[in-house]
Amino acid sequence: MPSTLDVALPHPFDPLGTVEIEEAISIVTKAHGELFFNVVSLLEPRKAEMTAWLANPDTAPRPTRVAEVVAIAKGGKVYDGLVNLAEGTITKWELLNGLQPIITMEELIAVEHICRKDPKVIEQCELSGVPREEMHKVYCDPWTIGYDERFGSQVRLQQALMYYRPDVDTCQYQYPLDFCPIFDVEKQAVIHIDIPKVRRPLSKTKPIDYHPTAVEATGGYRQDIKPIHITQPDGVSFQITGREIEWQRWKFHIGFNYREGIVLNNITFNDKGTVRPIFYRLSLAEMVVPYGNPEHPHQRKHAFDLGEYGAGYMTNSLSLGCDCKGAIHYLDAEFPTRSGGTRTIKNAICIHEEDAGILFKHTDFRDDSVIVTRARKLIIQQIFTAANYEYAIQWIFHQDGTIQPDIKLTGILNTYALNPDEDTDGWGTQVYPGVNAHNHQHLFCLRIDANVDGPRNTVFAVDAVPSEHPVGSAENFYGNGFGAKRTKLDTTGNAATDYNGATSRTWDMVNPSKIHPYSGKPASYKLVSREVPGLLPKEGSLVWKRAGFARHAVYVTKYRDDQLWPAGRHVPQTSGEPSQGIPEWIGDGSESVEDEDIVLWHTFGVTHIPAPEDFPVMPAEPITLLLRPRNFFLSNPVLDVPPSYACTPSQVAAAGAGALDATDRMSRLAFETNGAAACCGS
Amino acid sequence: MPSTLDVALPHPFDPLGTVEIEEAISIVTKAHGELFFNVVSLLEPRKAEMTAWLANPDTAPRPTRVAEVVAIAKGGKVYDGLVNLAEGTITKWELLNGLQPIITMEELIAVEHICRKDPKVIEQCELSGVPREEMHKVYCDPWTIGYDERFGSQVRLQQALMYYRPDVDTCQYQYPLDFCPIFDVEKQAVIHIDIPKVRRPLSKTKPIDYHPTAVEATGGYRQDIKPIHITQPDGVSFQITGREIEWQRWKFHIGFNYREGIVLNNITFNDKGTVRPIFYRLSLAEMVVPYGNPEHPHQRKHAFDLGEYGAGYMTNSLSLGCDCKGAIHYLDAEFPTRSGGTRTIKNAICIHEEDAGILFKHTDFRDDSVIVTRARKLIIQQIFTAANYEYAIQWIFHQDGTIQPDIKLTGILNTYALNPDEDTDGWGTQVYPGVNAHNHQHLFCLRIDANVDGPRNTVFAVDAVPSEHPVGSAENFYGNGFGAKRTKLDTTGNAATDYNGATSRTWDMVNPSKIHPYSGKPASYKLVSREVPGLLPKEGSLVWKRAGFARHAVYVTKYRDDQLWPAGRHVPQTSGEPSQGIPEWIGDGSESVEDEDIVLWHTFGVTHIPAPEDFPVMPAEPITLLLRPRNFFLSNPVLDVPPSYACTPSQVAAAGAGALDATDRMSRLAFETNGAAACCGS
Ligand SMILES: [Co+2]
Ligand SMILES: [Co+2]
Repeated sequence: MPSTLDVALPHPFDPLGTVEIEEAISIVTKAHGELFFNVVSLLEPRKAEMTAWLANPDTAPRPTRVAEVVAIAKGGKVYDGLVNLAEGTITKWELLNGLQPIITMEELIAVEHICRKDPKVIEQCELSGVPREEMHKVYCDPWTIGYDERFGSQVRLQQALMYYRPDVDTCQYQYPLDFCPIFDVEKQAVIHIDIPKVRRPLSKTKPIDYHPTAVEATGGYRQDIKPIHITQPDGVSFQITGREIEWQRWKFHIGFNYREGIVLNNITFNDKGTVRPIFYRLSLAEMVVPYGNPEHPHQRKHAFDLGEYGAGYMTNSLSLGCDCKGAIHYLDAEFPTRSGGTRTIKNAICIHEEDAGILFKHTDFRDDSVIVTRARKLIIQQIFTAANYEYAIQWIFHQDGTIQPDIKLTGILNTYALNPDEDTDGWGTQVYPGVNAHNHQHLFCLRIDANVDGPRNTVFAVDAVPSEHPVGSAENFYGNGFGAKRTKLDTTGNAATDYNGATSRTWDMVNPSKIHPYSGKPASYKLVSREVPGLLPKEGSLVWKRAGFARHAVYVTKYRDDQLWPAGRHVPQTSGEPSQGIPEWIGDGSESVEDEDIVLWHTFGVTHIPAPEDFPVMPAEPITLLLRPRNFFLSNPVLDVPPSYACTPSQVAAAGAGALDATDRMSRLAFETNGAAACCGS
Repeated sequence: MPSTLDVALPHPFDPLGTVEIEEAISIVTKAHGELFFNVVSLLEPRKAEMTAWLANPDTAPRPTRVAEVVAIAKGGKVYDGLVNLAEGTITKWELLNGLQPIITMEELIAVEHICRKDPKVIEQCELSGVPREEMHKVYCDPWTIGYDERFGSQVRLQQALMYYRPDVDTCQYQYPLDFCPIFDVEKQAVIHIDIPKVRRPLSKTKPIDYHPTAVEATGGYRQDIKPIHITQPDGVSFQITGREIEWQRWKFHIGFNYREGIVLNNITFNDKGTVRPIFYRLSLAEMVVPYGNPEHPHQRKHAFDLGEYGAGYMTNSLSLGCDCKGAIHYLDAEFPTRSGGTRTIKNAICIHEEDAGILFKHTDFRDDSVIVTRARKLIIQQIFTAANYEYAIQWIFHQDGTIQPDIKLTGILNTYALNPDEDTDGWGTQVYPGVNAHNHQHLFCLRIDANVDGPRNTVFAVDAVPSEHPVGSAENFYGNGFGAKRTKLDTTGNAATDYNGATSRTWDMVNPSKIHPYSGKPASYKLVSREVPGLLPKEGSLVWKRAGFARHAVYVTKYRDDQLWPAGRHVPQTSGEPSQGIPEWIGDGSESVEDEDIVLWHTFGVTHIPAPEDFPVMPAEPITLLLRPRNFFLSNPVLDVPPSYACTPSQVAAAGAGALDATDRMSRLAFETNGAAACCGS
């Protein structure tokens, strides 16, 4: 049995490397001939097996490397397969019926070239005011078709959102065209064009652009930003072994896949020598971006960016000094190409630390005795581009045991044509002349495989509520009584819960067997999430049916291997009848999720009513939430973080003798040339 | 008429300087003899006068410097006065009846010394297990009494929350005593002691402490945090003239007073040469921290930290390299002492910039042409200590026109004694053996004197809602229609609104006369606030009566000079009958606040159910909200921020020739010794 010390062996959580991907493709090609490869990715180790190995890596069997393969054969036949890489065998090869796998970048990129040559598309362009000799200036953002009942799921389709660029460097989103070709991937041809009743010819407005030439032409760049340097002369405070990172008591494995992008595995916290499990696996597992214009065919705009395109496949190669500042460690991502090769995204993940302001402070007002301790945070980041939008995903770890998933939305609005003096009817905003940016939501589904002090956990909804007793009663005479009402989510049905702003609802993932010796409450991690708009498409709507996971803010399911994708395994062109993923798994809602190995699914995000400030590129909009330890640690777990300054009452009385002064000597007064001033209490 | 260029003259918004405070005190003392001075502070310029002067500083009369003075004469007589500093005259001197002014630090500090010598307190200490020879180890946190119907408002009182320190350096909050003396400020004596029916003797548990000696004794400090240096070798990007700051199109005046601490005045944004007003005045105007234990006398614990103690009076002197890191500018604060002297809090405000991650980014998936622009933020910070708690208040300015008030809560929980095996009954948490930390809320009232493109503004509540038409109807066939429902808050009564999490409610402050040429919507600033727990003490409760401002998330009033304090001008010992401040000003709710000079009052915060992690000192807990420009700027206002890297499609086609590369050359790979890697697109 290979030892964990054998660094040549991948960690069982590691994504497939290039060699493994090549091997899987070679085995499959040998058996089944030429195919298009949509997915060649790690089949994650079965949890029981993996848990056993993690507990005893030297004696338990090491989980086998298995590749899951999704491929499309000529004729559009879709196969789901498994390849045992250790044995070189195909253990599963299943023809799927009426299911469409994830759309690859290559499939997307092909659409534009074919649309430009399609006579019917050219005809529509001419009708819109684009002469046929300018077809090279016509662009299309190929989108998942979502689901269109006219075409169903048997034929692999995309819809082509059409734009025009007067110049190759001009932002196309200010020149949307009003028609929408439907593209057949198997035929590599346009099979239909949706043409609106009201035509909207190409806008004649002059462009507004963000590229340097355009900015220089309109006044140039501001000159008044002085550099800020962030340096770590002694190196970083984290260690990386393979893809396992250790930082400030935290230890976890950083995975990555085509779909979710970053996956954090086996997150533990070293609590004074005891390694305590917290989450077995943490990821963004799905997204849906429903647009709110009810006019046909805009209802089709509700991309599941993860399930239909993949946050891994779309991830950016990050760059030192632009995407990331300071001392940075990068991890690459390796994927198959559609034709059976491989590709590497360099620097798919960046890892760095940041100063995080004050960790804690207290001053005694009597004598100004004080302690000030600064915080540090660790950030695991990826940025992916979903056609017009960019999503910067940060997994922020704090020293105090808090994990903060943090998302920044930037990039460009999806836009549609608007005639001069046409009304948006409240379904969108004219962000620039002729440019209608439709209302939309960005809804993210966070998958939390809870492992709070072990796999058997229970979730409670926690509401802050007044005492039930009236003002003037013996129990609540002055009327100020309030506390936390805890509702046990005992079954999958009862666990489907919504956010309640009025009670500041949070959700606790608790280990009912680990009772805190002081508080008497169970060890828990609390989900504190305040950006929970709920799904605005109505019950029974197309989006509601397809995005079952988004119907409630929280679902809890019993852990099962392979239940990873809340909108289903193969999302493109699903009708939502029946709804895949979470609604399937929950069934009649009777399954117990109390004191079980559970997964909590949390949908959060923003409703975006566009404004001109978002155009032609959006200043980043933040969304954040917290996973906080409550009744988990015996006491504040960061007392041993070295303070910047500490002076106790007895030291104050002794004129500061013995005070701990570890202030940052690099800090300076803004307008004085001589060095740092003396610190606190002096 | 003095010119604005005369730097010797204070800006009319400037706080009173030491010389002015001395002058006011001297004038008052000459006229009225010896007094205790609770307040000697700038009477802010009347808005009409100030607005005229701001518009024409060279020709309009410069607002006169006036000191408002609140003083207590022997016999406990309270006076409210005004002193015209230019003329050296007292223009108002009014005896107040049954009103108690703000409590000074000196009043607070006196209580402990007297309690230690009071025979009845000593007796209670002995009953609690503290021998009389250890009275020097007995501490008290003097608190506002709130309102106690047994004592009313005529006598100036405090309540003394009692603690014991086995050692002078030990955190007292782990040894609460169970009784509560009532202190008469005029008599300088304990006049009553509230003694609980169930006695809770002094805890014998050994202490847990955060001071260095205690940490060293229990394993010492962690050694694995490598330094991060933040430097600005070319200086900062802001200019300061007096107390006026200019940074990245922003310009505003930084005031400071005893009560609110930081006050930001006349906030404008230079929009391509046009100086556009946004807020006339912005501050945290009040706070209330109601505790949720209904047992007598805990209902009295609901401090109005600003109105009863003052965020200015309690503010910390900040230190370079501990409270603030990087290149820092400080401003001091000057206050009277109770006995008629003056005191200076050095470095009461710190001002600095931070890198703020990605400002915007977009990659074209076709060719990886890309722009990445990093953001900068400006932070105006103060930290104040309210007995056990600390509040770090940051006013964050973003380049894109967003203002982000941001608060971090740290310091120590207020605690009460708990017997072994006693239940907290859900009103608190045993965070350490014998230590009961009661449930509480931290509710902050943000005062926004809106000036969005001028003084006449209107507020709308904005709710994200589905189309009213059913799924399957012609208007909403696929059921995906949704948009923003805007409700005009036309009167003070209708403007009293709550947060609605289900609709992601926001509030727009709009200028109805400034219609955006593209969107057709009025210029607005949107209040985006998600931490809005609402007041948990019940309607009719003592807290509900006294903290009228906290009954709703938003109130809107018509601007009137001196309506600055939402819980009333003199808060200590108010009964709430009638409720002061906002409820008074609103009256029957019929006053129009449409297209008027308005003030928006927003109460937000957190409900804090303590946990052992918060003890013995709390890792900082964040609260934040945004004021965002929407339909205010013509387009994205930060296109002219220099990118880190930009490479257009034509430059990609030319192998990168001409690309703009301004990457940060100081950034480094974490684990490689050679310099920065090449940037994006390379
Ligand atoms: Co958006
Ligand atoms: Co608190």
